[in-house]
Amino acid sequence: MGNTFGRAFRVTTWGESHGDAVGVVIDGCPPQLPIELAEIQSELDRRRPGQSSITSQRREPDSAQILSGVFEGLTLGTPILIGVWSEDARGKDYDYMRRLFRPSHADYTYQAKYGIRNWKGGGRASARETIGRVAAGAIAKKLLRREFGLEIVGYVRQIWKIAAEVDADSVTMTDVEANVARCPDADVAARMIERIDKARRDGDSLGGVVEVVARNVPPGLGEPVFDKLDADLAKAMLSLPACKGFEVGTGFHGIGLTGSEHNDAFYVDAGGVRTRSNNSGGIQGGVSNGENIVARAAFKPTATINSDQETVDESGTATVMKGRGRHDPCVVPRAVPIVEAMVALVLVDHALRQRGQSGSVGTVNLENPV
Amino acid sequence: MGNTFGRAFRVTTWGESHGDAVGVVIDGCPPQLPIELAEIQSELDRRRPGQSSITSQRREPDSAQILSGVFEGLTLGTPILIGVWSEDARGKDYDYMRRLFRPSHADYTYQAKYGIRNWKGGGRASARETIGRVAAGAIAKKLLRREFGLEIVGYVRQIWKIAAEVDADSVTMTDVEANVARCPDADVAARMIERIDKARRDGDSLGGVVEVVARNVPPGLGEPVFDKLDADLAKAMLSLPACKGFEVGTGFHGIGLTGSEHNDAFYVDAGGVRTRSNNSGGIQGGVSNGENIVARAAFKPTATINSDQETVDESGTATVMKGRGRHDPCVVPRAVPIVEAMVALVLVDHALRQRGQSGSVGTVNLENPV
Amino acid sequence: MGNTFGRAFRVTTWGESHGDAVGVVIDGCPPQLPIELAEIQSELDRRRPGQSSITSQRREPDSAQILSGVFEGLTLGTPILIGVWSEDARGKDYDYMRRLFRPSHADYTYQAKYGIRNWKGGGRASARETIGRVAAGAIAKKLLRREFGLEIVGYVRQIWKIAAEVDADSVTMTDVEANVARCPDADVAARMIERIDKARRDGDSLGGVVEVVARNVPPGLGEPVFDKLDADLAKAMLSLPACKGFEVGTGFHGIGLTGSEHNDAFYVDAGGVRTRSNNSGGIQGGVSNGENIVARAAFKPTATINSDQETVDESGTATVMKGRGRHDPCVVPRAVPIVEAMVALVLVDHALRQRGQSGSVGTVNLENPV
Amino acid sequence: MGNTFGRAFRVTTWGESHGDAVGVVIDGCPPQLPIELAEIQSELDRRRPGQSSITSQRREPDSAQILSGVFEGLTLGTPILIGVWSEDARGKDYDYMRRLFRPSHADYTYQAKYGIRNWKGGGRASARETIGRVAAGAIAKKLLRREFGLEIVGYVRQIWKIAAEVDADSVTMTDVEANVARCPDADVAARMIERIDKARRDGDSLGGVVEVVARNVPPGLGEPVFDKLDADLAKAMLSLPACKGFEVGTGFHGIGLTGSEHNDAFYVDAGGVRTRSNNSGGIQGGVSNGENIVARAAFKPTATINSDQETVDESGTATVMKGRGRHDPCVVPRAVPIVEAMVALVLVDHALRQRGQSGSVGTVNLENPV
Repeated sequence: MGNTFGRAFRVTTWGESHGDAVGVVIDGCPPQLPIELAEIQSELDRRRPGQSSITSQRREPDSAQILSGVFEGLTLGTPILIGVWSEDARGKDYDYMRRLFRPSHADYTYQAKYGIRNWKGGGRASARETIGRVAAGAIAKKLLRREFGLEIVGYVRQIWKIAAEVDADSVTMTDVEANVARCPDADVAARMIERIDKARRDGDSLGGVVEVVARNVPPGLGEPVFDKLDADLAKAMLSLPACKGFEVGTGFHGIGLTGSEHNDAFYVDAGGVRTRSNNSGGIQGGVSNGENIVARAAFKPTATINSDQETVDESGTATVMKGRGRHDPCVVPRAVPIVEAMVALVLVDHALRQRGQSGSVGTVNLENPV
Repeated sequence: MGNTFGRAFRVTTWGESHGDAVGVVIDGCPPQLPIELAEIQSELDRRRPGQSSITSQRREPDSAQILSGVFEGLTLGTPILIGVWSEDARGKDYDYMRRLFRPSHADYTYQAKYGIRNWKGGGRASARETIGRVAAGAIAKKLLRREFGLEIVGYVRQIWKIAAEVDADSVTMTDVEANVARCPDADVAARMIERIDKARRDGDSLGGVVEVVARNVPPGLGEPVFDKLDADLAKAMLSLPACKGFEVGTGFHGIGLTGSEHNDAFYVDAGGVRTRSNNSGGIQGGVSNGENIVARAAFKPTATINSDQETVDESGTATVMKGRGRHDPCVVPRAVPIVEAMVALVLVDHALRQRGQSGSVGTVNLENPV
Repeated sequence: MGNTFGRAFRVTTWGESHGDAVGVVIDGCPPQLPIELAEIQSELDRRRPGQSSITSQRREPDSAQILSGVFEGLTLGTPILIGVWSEDARGKDYDYMRRLFRPSHADYTYQAKYGIRNWKGGGRASARETIGRVAAGAIAKKLLRREFGLEIVGYVRQIWKIAAEVDADSVTMTDVEANVARCPDADVAARMIERIDKARRDGDSLGGVVEVVARNVPPGLGEPVFDKLDADLAKAMLSLPACKGFEVGTGFHGIGLTGSEHNDAFYVDAGGVRTRSNNSGGIQGGVSNGENIVARAAFKPTATINSDQETVDESGTATVMKGRGRHDPCVVPRAVPIVEAMVALVLVDHALRQRGQSGSVGTVNLENPV
Repeated sequence: MGNTFGRAFRVTTWGESHGDAVGVVIDGCPPQLPIELAEIQSELDRRRPGQSSITSQRREPDSAQILSGVFEGLTLGTPILIGVWSEDARGKDYDYMRRLFRPSHADYTYQAKYGIRNWKGGGRASARETIGRVAAGAIAKKLLRREFGLEIVGYVRQIWKIAAEVDADSVTMTDVEANVARCPDADVAARMIERIDKARRDGDSLGGVVEVVARNVPPGLGEPVFDKLDADLAKAMLSLPACKGFEVGTGFHGIGLTGSEHNDAFYVDAGGVRTRSNNSGGIQGGVSNGENIVARAAFKPTATINSDQETVDESGTATVMKGRGRHDPCVVPRAVPIVEAMVALVLVDHALRQRGQSGSVGTVNLENPV
């Protein structure tokens, strides 16, 4: 259970990390949307390992196939099945995982929950599961761009204690992709890369913060009271592997302000009602107000490290897990397209819900009807 | 839409702030659970305004009625309807709100979304909506306590820049209720109260952080991959009025650690598999591991302040909103029972889901079946 | 669980037959729909007992109250709570029901399922539960009428072995309400009424068939493959007390035809693509084709009869249940507004879903896009 | 939308008739269930065309692959992806379908709904979509058999006007599979086969009734009030291609009885509370009572016939569709395993829901708690 996200644009991912394939079924994508396989593949390429010196050197081409729901280049309105087949039989490398619980991984909790797990890898808890999310997100992004001109840009805000200031209103994907750290501030990015290299040499790992901005968001997205737009964004972020925190607008930092400092004053310009500041991060009362949505997700340091660790095996015996293999010392740069995908899934879901309820999206009628 | 929370223990709240009544329908509460109205009322009393010098002086007795689903003191397994009727006709006080959009409230976004709103108050965006959540949470808490001995304690960790250190493993509800700030550290509490008093005198407002701990949580709660336990907690918190951030375990602070510092080593003791540290906050891979769940929610400073503010009215004309009335300069202490209620709703939902899938809750079978 | 119907227009009923109140919460009703309490009450009046000589003589005024979601005569887009309070304390009459299981009622199955039941009546299995459905249906009907001019007319097609032929294309509500049998054929109605009177004198009961037609239905409603329009209609009908069968179009009678006799040939007229016959009942492949939707629901004879019956009590002891009291010998005429309400709930739900997916409802683009 | 069935055992089918593959994702299957591919394949073999002289001669081996969710022969508790790849490129045969709407097929309604369709076949409206249902149903059957000894047997009750009497309490799958009509009465089966042969020679088609019995059903399955067990069965049946009617117990025939004839008297025997008759078809108040569940589904004559038919093309021009090709003159025998699969999906879903709510399935506590 729990493998489906969204209500109007429903995404169900499937597949274990070391099974035959992983992928996604999308139910609820509107018909007649032009989709090229290349649009999906390019997002998957941003996600996959082996892209750069600071990511894992495993080679996973992650070639997507579309098996249903698209016909002659257009969506049919029927379920879209996208799969990526495993090419690399890596079972042997993972034999040591058969019986022990890797610290701060999901081995133990899955075993506790199900009484069984695919011990050849992280199973559903692996980052490989996010392939389906990114594939679905590519379609969601396309739809949002075509329908509303809505644009989503994610980037690395912080690695370990190294943080960048980024102007969310102007940052572009080109800025982000300019370096392997995916941090648009080149100087800070260089320091991040250096620190990640050190972590690799130390057999250690690092976490960080991904910030994401959605621009040109129509007002009115988000459903009171439980399906607030920021509530669904929070769920989307925390559903990602290694994510331990979420904030929107000023988030935790806003606590140090008073109400008079924090409130966003309204004014009117040609574009309609606007706010002078955007401490709310584009969402008020759980509903988008037309300002840029700005949110952040905190990712803990990767649990896989190249050092010996105390742990327990399936028989309940204390043991030591040896560090081994080549792993990402920091997955945060690779998380950027995944975060963007989840934001796209949330926004497209709410746009379709709003269209169903109100017949239109983004139309603002200020005056009450009489 | 979006007024329902949970899948197995489904809670639907209803009612506008200044309508006839507010309340909740609970669908999925197991049968034969003993419920006294007093158990619900005592939680509502913790939530309501007018409790203390630092909360709003409005008088809302908020007396609950149970209209269905309970028979001779036991739940029937049928929908439980709980309502609180409005006693105080305050329409006149809010007449100034008829046309203008209060800054950082939901007036504008609701108007943009629906083209109409109950202007006599915040409608569904009001904290009054949380009455239904707290009533449902009282039942969820009872169920969790009876079935698992599970205990949930929330408390104020920070107000403005004043933060307390609290031992989540030992703090009790008595500690929390010992002062009106609901901060278990009496010295820090005193400083918080003083600062809140100053905010009132300034016509200003403050935000803060509520921390919550769930103890004696059975392992195995949480559904991969989208309905992770922490993902649903994040959604639950962000669905609360004024909440702008969520974190579990080390959260945003964990980013400053490396993997070798952050990983929670497993060991075995009489109680089964345990972790030496609890940086994960009791959840790994989205599933509870039996350690205490520790999470935090950030609440921005209350949007209502007693100062003049620039804003816009429904005709799109710039105007100034005058400060007036008696409002909570800081709602964070009142948020404590609401946060607890939401945590209870998440946990009970996942416990029922786990019971449906696996036939039992909290049983750990370490070895794979053969 | 299971007290919610619909996905986009979500209806949750609550309340036991002999509890304090029964009612409904509607989540997903679009904003700005004008609603008068009288519109709801008039539908409830068609449903309630004591309307005529052939229905139960119990007096239940069933006065509805709207507690939320409507403001100054318009829906807010927020949950609409409608309740009907019980006025008649009838506990004593039902004391004999405390321990025995009435044959072909839900007493035994509820006890088996929950281990507890409100023995003072049928609880949730009572026809009284349908009050919430009819109230929600009144709003759904209003929305369908205003948005599409869509019209729903139900009527009694058969009582016991007495069947009427009715022209579904032309029958009006006035025809239906012209007699207490709610059968638009006056002669057949007279025979039905006579037979129902005899059943009452015999201490016995009768069942029947309600037919319903929806006219001016936009093409394109219904979601492949599980949420077909007729699948949801079937579920809606079978969810009604005493309903044991459903058919659409020719239904069970169509089996006696061959494909060449049964197929509905397409032709074109000013109104677009039409079918020469309507054996499909307005639905093909689970999606409305613009022809009138015609469906039927079979209701078994009422389980409550005024005769002695063999049964068992809660201790598992054989006993005899004495006939007593004044009950409807035939509830089928009262089922007419309930059936209409359920059809309205299905159609409005699918209309909102279609609007969300495709941005419009009822627009037919014949040619494939290129 | 609408491609998912079930709440606790969630089945999502995907794939167009003439696309690359069709299949299913199952979310919510409990862990540790032994599953062999052969168990799934044998059910698919009962469904596929080309089995016998009275079915289509198209050759579709329909070989299933399991891509996720099963590990070393056991379910993992994670999503199970099963696919069947298309082997036969039949695009050319269907070229005539590019522009015209086949009468009583879904071509027109899909075009009206989506503005696009995969014209190379029925797309999602094809019987080929049911492959995923049958595959999922095979797993559901296995689970029901292992957990409860629950057994489901379907069979052909009627073809055209030729009906059989079958003893639902004793009929076996061996009886059913004894002839190609899947009617356990050999004499009636012979007449059915003869009539189907005649229909083929006539270029015509026939419909019929499939009856299904579920034996050894635990009491207490089914959720009041909308998710009644029979309501979900009705939806399941009407979601099948060509199904136009559903009934449970006496269904439409029960209308000719009075209440005193129709009521099922309770008595007690060693097995607990039983009913003397089973006019209710094993379900009372929407909840199983432990008696055999008996239900029927009516299938209209197949829309595809080998005769010329009046129709319209995509440009809105009247045209004649020529009969051609080799098609099943009667799909009803092939519908038997599909009906069984849907019944299994409904029952397993309700069993898991009941286990979540009440902690056990089938335990009957007669006395109210005190």
